[in-house]
Amino acid sequence: MSASAFADALARLVPVDEVARADAVTLSDRLTKPRGALGAVEVVGAQLAAIARTCPPPVPAPAFVAVFAGDHGVVEEGVTPWPAEVTAQMVANFCAGGAAINVLARHSGAEVVVVDVGVMSELDPHPGLVRAKVRAGTRNLAREAAMTVAECTAALDVGAAVAASLVGERGARCLLTGDMGIGNTTSSAAVIAAICGLPADVVTGRGTGIDDAMLARKTEIVAHAVARVRSGAPALDVLAELGGLEIAALAGFIVGGAAAGVPVIVDGVIACAAMVVAATIAPDCVGSCVAGHRSSEPGASAALAHVGLSPLLDLELRLGEGTGACLALSVVQAAAKVLREMATFDAAGVTDKG
Amino acid sequence: MSASAFADALARLVPVDEVARADAVTLSDRLTKPRGALGAVEVVGAQLAAIARTCPPPVPAPAFVAVFAGDHGVVEEGVTPWPAEVTAQMVANFCAGGAAINVLARHSGAEVVVVDVGVMSELDPHPGLVRAKVRAGTRNLAREAAMTVAECTAALDVGAAVAASLVGERGARCLLTGDMGIGNTTSSAAVIAAICGLPADVVTGRGTGIDDAMLARKTEIVAHAVARVRSGAPALDVLAELGGLEIAALAGFIVGGAAAGVPVIVDGVIACAAMVVAATIAPDCVGSCVAGHRSSEPGASAALAHVGLSPLLDLELRLGEGTGACLALSVVQAAAKVLREMATFDAAGVTDKG
Repeated sequence: MSASAFADALARLVPVDEVARADAVTLSDRLTKPRGALGAVEVVGAQLAAIARTCPPPVPAPAFVAVFAGDHGVVEEGVTPWPAEVTAQMVANFCAGGAAINVLARHSGAEVVVVDVGVMSELDPHPGLVRAKVRAGTRNLAREAAMTVAECTAALDVGAAVAASLVGERGARCLLTGDMGIGNTTSSAAVIAAICGLPADVVTGRGTGIDDAMLARKTEIVAHAVARVRSGAPALDVLAELGGLEIAALAGFIVGGAAAGVPVIVDGVIACAAMVVAATIAPDCVGSCVAGHRSSEPGASAALAHVGLSPLLDLELRLGEGTGACLALSVVQAAAKVLREMATFDAAGVTDKG
Repeated sequence: MSASAFADALARLVPVDEVARADAVTLSDRLTKPRGALGAVEVVGAQLAAIARTCPPPVPAPAFVAVFAGDHGVVEEGVTPWPAEVTAQMVANFCAGGAAINVLARHSGAEVVVVDVGVMSELDPHPGLVRAKVRAGTRNLAREAAMTVAECTAALDVGAAVAASLVGERGARCLLTGDMGIGNTTSSAAVIAAICGLPADVVTGRGTGIDDAMLARKTEIVAHAVARVRSGAPALDVLAELGGLEIAALAGFIVGGAAAGVPVIVDGVIACAAMVVAATIAPDCVGSCVAGHRSSEPGASAALAHVGLSPLLDLELRLGEGTGACLALSVVQAAAKVLREMATFDAAGVTDKG
């Protein structure tokens, strides 16, 4: 991992190419369909052109989903019915190929890379596992800062380095965000509340499925933690105070992917928390983000609205891992193919409307 | 084409298997994810089990999208800016592989079959074209019945026969509805209004994109045509009075697919019009229908609500051809793979929630 991968990404990041986007809109209007009739597919196609800086855009493949895993000290507060050791167990499941993300990635033609950026326990080596643990889980954000700024920066570097490596060394032309971390919807809600300036009860949800009492406790913890953050604090400080190691890594991954010039398909609420941080630090990265789906978690919708993105899918998913991004990948790739492969009115001898 | 293909399908149609659906729900709850966390994907997976009468269900592949093409006499009323000859031109585009449905079908691994059930002009033979013209376009539904009952029945038979042939002879394990017919959103709105008992202005939309004046004229035509249908008229009579040849064929196709025991992914408003007719004649067919997407046309949402289906995708598509169904195919196939390939808590050694 480059110690300055995140800084490198920030230095390389440029806005997407609006000329290529306009070219794609013009091309789309010449294709044998009523103008705009492919709706969001046309919008994404134009965005892919803007990201690739050429029209028609290349098909965004091969795609890699990076699943960043980390544990959360706040789990000791009873914000989830799942024991913390499930994070490590699920990492083993990812490596063995049996989790939802494995099934959906195989189906979508994406490759899964698992990154230990902060799992509590020591994990066995595995060819599919990148070992980049910054620390063994965050501190309990209900009581103290989850990370030091140095730890947070290290996690940002892990994410940015993974993005750079996937694009530069493994030829990725599309990156998908994935996450695993018992307790991470609590941390995400806190980050989103603080960055977007929203009350805790608006952004805190039931995560993997909790009852009213646990939701009330979770919301109270989010509210108290957010109250520690002074108004106008830099995003990096907010992230260190409230974030997770995997959330920080995802923020680095998003900026890294954008800096590398590839689309980044953003998954659910964890990725959305990372995205609002990334967007605050480096606003130009948003142009490379495609919102894969609308998570059931309320914080996800708030975060998407904050950065002005509309999600492609709304399948009531609340799993994380990158599953929603993976399901969206097919639509994203289809959008490029529409621009590359459809006939124009002229070429097909079809009369345009009067 | 079997002259009694639709009657044969009606005779073979049975309800989907609720035991297999329940088995799938039970299995889904044992997989390494929070219960219900894959949202609509889990619901579709259970439906696939119910359709296939076994759990886990087979992956619904290979898939075929049948694009039924027909012209509409009502086009002479000025309900669309597109000239009627575009129907035939687009059929040629489908056969040449340059239309949106061709691009999306190739992307999704589905095969396109084009069926001329009522195009105005004589079409040249093509290996990808099934020539089953019932008549050269419908009559003008603004002035008279669009079809005789005999013509309507013949079109139902065409659709049912295509479904039977794709499943029985070509091995289809998933059928997708497609359509092409300049003027067919007018006919679809009328069918949906009459079958669902809704006012014309609630179900009539801008189709491929028309201005306010044309929309007002279109809505008036729909209202007047629907007023000719007596309350409680049999669905077949409604279909003959207001429908299109491709809409009737799609109704036959949906019943035929359901009777053959395969999922039928229903596309936009044209297919929705066919579906409400099919559901009225043969309610058991709805269990085999998966709503692929929510068309921008208001009639589509009304029709989906009428039969109680929730669409998988909402990408603001208003193209038809089967494009929305094709984009949904990947999600439908993923739903089967989740049930077939994911590890259980026991097998993966993951602790279930406390």
